Amino acid sequence: MAKALPVSPLAPAGFPDLPAVAGVRFAAAAAGVKYEGRDDVMLAVLDPGTTVAGVFTQSKTRSAPVLDCEAKLGADRLRGDSREAAAFLVNAGNSNAFTGRAGDESVAALCRAVSAATNVPEARVFTASTGVIGERLPHDRIEAVMETLATGLDAYGLPSAARAIMTTDTFPKGAARKVEIDDQTVTIAGIAKGSGMIAPDMATLLVYLFTDARLSAEALQPLVADHNAKTFNAITVDSDTSTSDTLLVAATGATGIDATGHEAFATALFDVMFDLATQVVRDGEGASKLIRVRVTGAADNADARRAAMAVANSPLVKTAIAGEDANWGRIVMAIGKSGAAADRDRISIRFGEIVVAENGWAAQSYREEDGAAYMKRREIDIVVGLGVGDGTFTAYTCDLTHGYISINADYRS
Amino acid sequence: MAKALPVSPLAPAGFPDLPAVAGVRFAAAAAGVKYEGRDDVMLAVLDPGTTVAGVFTQSKTRSAPVLDCEAKLGADRLRGDSREAAAFLVNAGNSNAFTGRAGDESVAALCRAVSAATNVPEARVFTASTGVIGERLPHDRIEAVMETLATGLDAYGLPSAARAIMTTDTFPKGAARKVEIDDQTVTIAGIAKGSGMIAPDMATLLVYLFTDARLSAEALQPLVADHNAKTFNAITVDSDTSTSDTLLVAATGATGIDATGHEAFATALFDVMFDLATQVVRDGEGASKLIRVRVTGAADNADARRAAMAVANSPLVKTAIAGEDANWGRIVMAIGKSGAAADRDRISIRFGEIVVAENGWAAQSYREEDGAAYMKRREIDIVVGLGVGDGTFTAYTCDLTHGYISINADYRS
Repeated sequence: MAKALPVSPLAPAGFPDLPAVAGVRFAAAAAGVKYEGRDDVMLAVLDPGTTVAGVFTQSKTRSAPVLDCEAKLGADRLRGDSREAAAFLVNAGNSNAFTGRAGDESVAALCRAVSAATNVPEARVFTASTGVIGERLPHDRIEAVMETLATGLDAYGLPSAARAIMTTDTFPKGAARKVEIDDQTVTIAGIAKGSGMIAPDMATLLVYLFTDARLSAEALQPLVADHNAKTFNAITVDSDTSTSDTLLVAATGATGIDATGHEAFATALFDVMFDLATQVVRDGEGASKLIRVRVTGAADNADARRAAMAVANSPLVKTAIAGEDANWGRIVMAIGKSGAAADRDRISIRFGEIVVAENGWAAQSYREEDGAAYMKRREIDIVVGLGVGDGTFTAYTCDLTHGYISINADYRS
Repeated sequence: MAKALPVSPLAPAGFPDLPAVAGVRFAAAAAGVKYEGRDDVMLAVLDPGTTVAGVFTQSKTRSAPVLDCEAKLGADRLRGDSREAAAFLVNAGNSNAFTGRAGDESVAALCRAVSAATNVPEARVFTASTGVIGERLPHDRIEAVMETLATGLDAYGLPSAARAIMTTDTFPKGAARKVEIDDQTVTIAGIAKGSGMIAPDMATLLVYLFTDARLSAEALQPLVADHNAKTFNAITVDSDTSTSDTLLVAATGATGIDATGHEAFATALFDVMFDLATQVVRDGEGASKLIRVRVTGAADNADARRAAMAVANSPLVKTAIAGEDANWGRIVMAIGKSGAAADRDRISIRFGEIVVAENGWAAQSYREEDGAAYMKRREIDIVVGLGVGDGTFTAYTCDLTHGYISINADYRS
């Protein structure tokens, strides 16, 4: 059970000032699904005119809410570009995954309750649940606070919502950007939760993004999917993939400003997603160091990703860094096991600007004490050249410490 | 550096009585490559008449000795069935991997030295090195003890050889079987080392098997490859794959008994390999529990392996077991991320004989206290049914504890 863990040493200095996003209001409440004495449910209600896009875990045991969201977004697309009101409901403490038909029934009950309290059509209510797998969700407890949520909706409620969806997170995660389009301002704001079971596969943890710009779902979906590949799909804490990963983005259109095809908007959306993704790594369970693994010279980008993720997921690389040991041989091992094409005699490795290995062996200029000094840093850059092509990828991870074992050897019982 | 680690609680009661294998003699010596005050080199010399087969790591950064062994076995096959004398030389403390051309030179120098001291042709000297990656092998130190090794060869030297090749191992690993063929007895004996960086890919760690039966290399190679798939390729400690994995099997033929196609021999060889493979898991770095993951009902055996290995490699499953937490939701997660085909509503999970989940949800008969009591055991059986076909596979692993972090956060420096 999530005791009060100390805040990650990699946490940002503070929670950002999240601006209001026109067309969306938030509420949080304490339903007591599992946690005591804290909010554990959040509701976001989006005005008519809102388009929704999203990406989800590719797990074969994905949760009932994920299956429901996928079906609803698919139906939205079939009907054309839905602009009805929408709602997001999220609870922490129980993931409603691997709960059979009872799981589907819980989702349906919650969607009915949200619809009754907010007048949002059930087909536009998107739920998510995060927490323990395999236990029935006590959805009646959430229904019991639905009126409280619906009457407490507030344009400035996003920070409370960010706190309500935390599980083993040690800090809430938020990010925002403003973009000028034709001398007018649109806002993008988002929140995320995630700390362990982080190795998103085509999707992500729980992430909610909001903008008051207008975009069709048709324009929004590929933008989010592209950005996702280099943000949430580029992070890993422990190589374990959640049953509940969900990223939803809602464009309320409340400003009336059309951001379709607007490059500054696309960049700002990327920035918010990247900011949130790296905050998740900074809150990696037990993390003491942030690690960026940049792979260049791969046969293609997919091979670069394969090699970068093999390094980022290697327990031996991650424990070496936890021990501030410049044990670059373990990086060689991880490259080797990844299966990515590499020219053994042209492989190079750098720690930041320090050339550690080149031409397939320790660099003549490399001194152990330089590597050892570099490893004392809070943020570590590993740069690998494979020497065969132009493919590149950067993965983001954290080290593997005693803290990870402590958190996960007694999370549930 | 390998301090004196406490012996794994999963270690066998003692080292087995290894019988002599006709046609092979062993020696061990202290070359001081890295470790102080212990043997760190072993030599095995095999009489003329010996055939050799082997499997090796598929790492793209495999070591200089692995590349040399692969080339020599390939040449053996090209020349037909070589029956010349042969030798195996192994050192611990330095893996001679990622050492560029210097690595190849070290291998060549050692093969020359072995040949000069033993009269075995260089083309039949198979070396291996295990330890730190990326540091030049001080092969002169090994050459300096070559005469000691060559003059100390002993038919009963296999236990000393098993100790000389240890790195982070907490106990030496040996196994033997005797087989009756046409009222005559042949012997199979073998040794292995390995404790971390264990996730063999098509091959294994360091394993040396000896028999005094006669088999052609043509008969021996497929037998070893088949057995390997269900023994060394079915184990994992930490999902990290070595640059140096090497399994060599030598049939001296000294008894004159032909074991080709003999089923009892094949079974005995399997038993020795299985025994050694599970000893490696029992010595997994920091291990406190042995875990067998049996997957049934998969679309095919490859899918069963994928699911079993995903469970066996999941940090969250392994930390839960370390904490004696019957957190079977994490098993669901690992099945889901594996990508193996599964019918979510037919998945079943057992702990030994305890039915935990069936038909895609917690079993009605399951009681938390039964699962909790089961988790106190030293050996844990996880049995997963995927509900789609007839594929099966069993993987062998250990839990993930603070001990693993302690060992690997300061192995090298």
